[in-house]
Amino acid sequence: MNYTIRRAEKTDLPDILDLIKELAAFEKEPDAVEVDLEDLEKEGFGPKPLFTCFVAEVQGRIEGMALVYYRYSTWKGRTIHLEDLIVRENKRGTGLGSALYKQVIEFAEEQGVKRTEWVVLDWNTPAIDFYKRSGATVLTDWHTVQMNEQAMKSFLEKAK
Amino acid sequence: MNYTIRRAEKTDLPDILDLIKELAAFEKEPDAVEVDLEDLEKEGFGPKPLFTCFVAEVQGRIEGMALVYYRYSTWKGRTIHLEDLIVRENKRGTGLGSALYKQVIEFAEEQGVKRTEWVVLDWNTPAIDFYKRSGATVLTDWHTVQMNEQAMKSFLEKAK
Repeated sequence: MNYTIRRAEKTDLPDILDLIKELAAFEKEPDAVEVDLEDLEKEGFGPKPLFTCFVAEVQGRIEGMALVYYRYSTWKGRTIHLEDLIVRENKRGTGLGSALYKQVIEFAEEQGVKRTEWVVLDWNTPAIDFYKRSGATVLTDWHTVQMNEQAMKSFLEKAK
Repeated sequence: MNYTIRRAEKTDLPDILDLIKELAAFEKEPDAVEVDLEDLEKEGFGPKPLFTCFVAEVQGRIEGMALVYYRYSTWKGRTIHLEDLIVRENKRGTGLGSALYKQVIEFAEEQGVKRTEWVVLDWNTPAIDFYKRSGATVLTDWHTVQMNEQAMKSFLEKAK
C-alpha cells in the first residue's frame, strides 16, 4: 500500500478529530472527547504550539495519526510523550501504525530527547506485545492520578 | 510554622536539584537523575519555558518544591501535569506538602485547564490515600510505556 507520513496541517484537523473520536470509542469512552476543531487549531497551530501531529495519508485520505508533545522529566530532562497513535479501523494491519510509530521515534531522536513515553490500557495485549517487541519497557508499578475540573473546584472550596 | 509558597527563581535551582535527588533516593533510584543545573535553567527559565516550578521557603531555606508543565489531552484539551512534589525529609508532616499541592491545584484552576494529572508508585500508600481524600482518582488500568535513548537507537537501526 502506498502511503505518506507527514506533519499535519490545519486542513487535516477534521479528519484528526474524527480519528480521536474513533479511538475514544475503541477505549470504551465514546463521550469523553471534549476538544473541538477550534481547540485543536489553537493549541496545535498557534504561535506557541503545544503539540506536534503526524498523519498517514493514503490516496488523499487521512487514515491515521500520531500526536506528540514535550514533557520534562526531572531525571532525564526533555522527553517526548506520545499521546495518541490511531489508525482507522478498516486500515489496521496495513503497516500504517508501524510507519507512524517509526516516525514518532525518529522525531524523538532528531529532537535529542532521552526518552519517549506513552500509556497503554492493561487489556490492550496486542499493543503491549508490539511495544515490547519494539524495545519499549512497560511499567506496571506506576498509577495515573487525575483530578478533574469539578474535583479541583471542590478541593479549593474546602481548602479555603 | 511560617512558610512562603512562591514561584521558583533561577537562584533556587541548586536547592531544587538537591530535592530532586532526594526524591530519586526515596523512590529507590538514587542514580537516575541525569539533569543538571544548566538543563534546569535552560528548560525552565529560557525564552520558552517547558515547566513552572513552585518552592516552599522556610526561614530563607527551600524545603519543598512542586514542578508542573502543560500536556495536551485529545479528550480534555490542555491539562496540567504535576511531575514532582517534594518536601525535604525532615520537614514532612509540617503542612508544606499540602500547601504546595494546593498551590498546584490553584495554578491549574487559574490556567483554566480541565484536569491535573500525575503518577504515583503503587507502594506509596500514604500518598495514594492523601490524593484520594483530596478528590483525585487513581487509575490502575493504564500502564506507562517508556523507550529510552538506547532502545530508540536500536529500534531505528533495525527499522532501516
